[in-house]
Amino acid sequence: MSLPEKIEVSADRKYPVYLGAALEDLGGYIHSLPDKVEQILVISHKKVADLYLERLMTGLGDYTVDLMIVPAGEEEKSLDRLSRLTTDALGFGADRKTLVIALGGGVIGDLAGFFASVYMRGIRLIQVPTTLLAQVDSSIGGKVAVNHPAGKNILGAFHPPVAVWTDFRTLDSLPWIEVENGLAESIKHALITDSDFFSFFETQADSIKRRDPVIWREMVARSASIKVRVVSQDEREQGIRRLLNLGHSFGHALETEMNYRGVTHGQGVSIGIVAAAFLANAKGLITLNEVERIKQVLRCYDLPTSISRQDPHALLQRMETDKKNQGGRKILILPQGIGNAVVSKECKDEEILDAWQKVILEDN
Amino acid sequence: MSLPEKIEVSADRKYPVYLGAALEDLGGYIHSLPDKVEQILVISHKKVADLYLERLMTGLGDYTVDLMIVPAGEEEKSLDRLSRLTTDALGFGADRKTLVIALGGGVIGDLAGFFASVYMRGIRLIQVPTTLLAQVDSSIGGKVAVNHPAGKNILGAFHPPVAVWTDFRTLDSLPWIEVENGLAESIKHALITDSDFFSFFETQADSIKRRDPVIWREMVARSASIKVRVVSQDEREQGIRRLLNLGHSFGHALETEMNYRGVTHGQGVSIGIVAAAFLANAKGLITLNEVERIKQVLRCYDLPTSISRQDPHALLQRMETDKKNQGGRKILILPQGIGNAVVSKECKDEEILDAWQKVILEDN
Ligand SMILES: NC(=O)c1ccc[n+]([C@@H]2O[C@H](COP(=O)([O-])OP(=O)(O)OC[C@H]3O[C@@H](n4cnc5c(N)ncnc54)[C@H](O)[C@@H]3O)[C@@H](O)[C@H]2O)c1
Ligand SMILES: NC(=O)c1ccc[n+]([C@@H]2O[C@H](COP(=O)([O-])OP(=O)(O)OC[C@H]3O[C@@H](n4cnc5c(N)ncnc54)[C@H](O)[C@@H]3O)[C@@H](O)[C@H]2O)c1
Repeated sequence: MSLPEKIEVSADRKYPVYLGAALEDLGGYIHSLPDKVEQILVISHKKVADLYLERLMTGLGDYTVDLMIVPAGEEEKSLDRLSRLTTDALGFGADRKTLVIALGGGVIGDLAGFFASVYMRGIRLIQVPTTLLAQVDSSIGGKVAVNHPAGKNILGAFHPPVAVWTDFRTLDSLPWIEVENGLAESIKHALITDSDFFSFFETQADSIKRRDPVIWREMVARSASIKVRVVSQDEREQGIRRLLNLGHSFGHALETEMNYRGVTHGQGVSIGIVAAAFLANAKGLITLNEVERIKQVLRCYDLPTSISRQDPHALLQRMETDKKNQGGRKILILPQGIGNAVVSKECKDEEILDAWQKVILEDN
Repeated sequence: MSLPEKIEVSADRKYPVYLGAALEDLGGYIHSLPDKVEQILVISHKKVADLYLERLMTGLGDYTVDLMIVPAGEEEKSLDRLSRLTTDALGFGADRKTLVIALGGGVIGDLAGFFASVYMRGIRLIQVPTTLLAQVDSSIGGKVAVNHPAGKNILGAFHPPVAVWTDFRTLDSLPWIEVENGLAESIKHALITDSDFFSFFETQADSIKRRDPVIWREMVARSASIKVRVVSQDEREQGIRRLLNLGHSFGHALETEMNYRGVTHGQGVSIGIVAAAFLANAKGLITLNEVERIKQVLRCYDLPTSISRQDPHALLQRMETDKKNQGGRKILILPQGIGNAVVSKECKDEEILDAWQKVILEDN
């Protein structure tokens, strides 16, 4: 067994991210926590629990462990599901000494995390991410949330976990369509902070698509480390953390306008990154050549760089209600060359429309 | 105009409690905040808004202010109401620069506070308490919550306000039955920390019942200051803050067993304080004479010290699910003489049953 790499998130409260940890070893880690754990709730999807709960349980034999299965799907990140989890947790006798383990992707992480943040005003949480997106992105940074009919992630909290326990081997079972969601975020991480890592995506496409374990390990570790670095500098998203939203304001608008059908989150982000790159080009922040490199690398991984049959005005309208807007002004993150990004507070509606036009295919 | 007294709560994030502030002056205070406010949501009951919104608006003329009226009643502290507030807030265009003002008693404070704690992962909150209970207790300390069918205050957060703005004059319109709820908590504050303040309640009963403004001012200020002192030492309820639960484990059991009918919160706490005192006496922590003094002072204010027709075993059963229990053990707060209290982790079921017996009247 190789020891996991430990990197520390320095936030309001510091916490470790273990990269390359084994599910079987989590129990030993929990035993070593200074403040005793008296009961454990594992929140997961059926499919993920079927695959991985047994390995997790190897180390948890000493504890009372209760399992709460949540149906798969973004729509389960809801107040209604929170309420049901609460009923079940009370039924299991969960109290302030109970620890929640979120075993799954970003949906489980966000939902179980929000549950842990509000149950009895906050109980402990360990994130055990099992999707690429969760390992490189959503499990790190303390953000947890549920959706509301009127908006995604509208109700949430900052609830830093006790630890993030990342077993790379859980990704072996992940369907490629889910891999793509994580790749979009990883490429975004490279684009906003690390041109060398961006080149890695350009040169290693074959190995990554073959899921070469050594290359994957490097990819996940580098990408997760970028997220750790960014949120350590700015837990509350007052500054640099906002850069992580590159592509997301455009992407969210597209996802909501399409009613979350026919476009995955990763695809939305991918198109959003391209739109943001075109806007950056219009503002002189990036060359057309660099925009092409971005499109090229996304295409390498089968990520879309354009969409057909959309109304740019409707998409612009969707961007009005973005959580990141402040006082009615539109704030967008734009790439500045490759490996760098900036917050632009002065994005005019016409510029945004132009950027949308450039990623919308004319049908004829 | 006399300047309000300012005391500071030192917590994770410090915040001021202004005692004897005028509603009319809140706008000026908000203008002086370092981080600009761009929009205000006032959350209140219709009755309270009818009485006090105009005075509050005096100082808020410069801002976009939207009013969200919540029907009165404990049952509105719910996830369902949280969801409706969210819909309305999004409709008003509330974003991260929006400030929430909770204008009302503890129900509004807890509900609006929880809403503010989770809306877009947390926006700013000012507590403007208008009941005695809210002024001396619930507005101070950062605890916010909603109820769940399976338990009171089960889902919540610590969300320290920007400030607590306490205008004593709003209490003039408070019905006596509501005053009693606050008195029970005030007397509890005295009992657990300040024997001199306890004597104040013994000697000033006539003036307090007449609502003598000078005596009331002193009562509210002293009681609020005790709450500030306690939560400043222990925001997260790891130690001394737990003493504030004196009477509440018994009281909650009674309230839930009676289905919140026929007993107010203050009455529950009052009977709970007496039960805790009897249990303390059985453990040699307090003399029977002191138990009598406690009963006497509660009776002075028409607060009950016993209840008829209850099954002590059913009440004991209700105490099983108390949030404060840890790992199945019952933890109770007991008075130690007058002006002092302790956390007792070793309360046996028989002792608790005996204490219940002493406050249950035999009918015949
Ligand atoms: N909190 C944050 O900072 C943050 C950041 C980005 C995204 N998110 C959130 O993350 C969510 C998306 O997360 P996601 O992309 O992981 O989706 P997901 O959690 O829905 O997982 C996708 C699917 O993969 C399955 N799955 C999970 N692990 C598996 C495995 N090892 N093998 C096989 N199947 C597996 C799941 O059961 C699910 O059906 C969104 O709700 C988004 O809002 C949060
Ligand atoms: N967060 C905490 O630390 C904490 C502490 C103690 C209690 N609480 C909570 O507080 C709640 C009880 O609060 P409460 O006793 O203030 O009850 P409440 O908020 O229900 O108010 C009681 C009634 O008085 C009315 N009212 C309010 N101000 C008035 C005024 N100035 N004049 C006339 N009428 C007025 C209200 O409209 C309401 O009908 C409970 O939900 C309890 O859980 C919270």
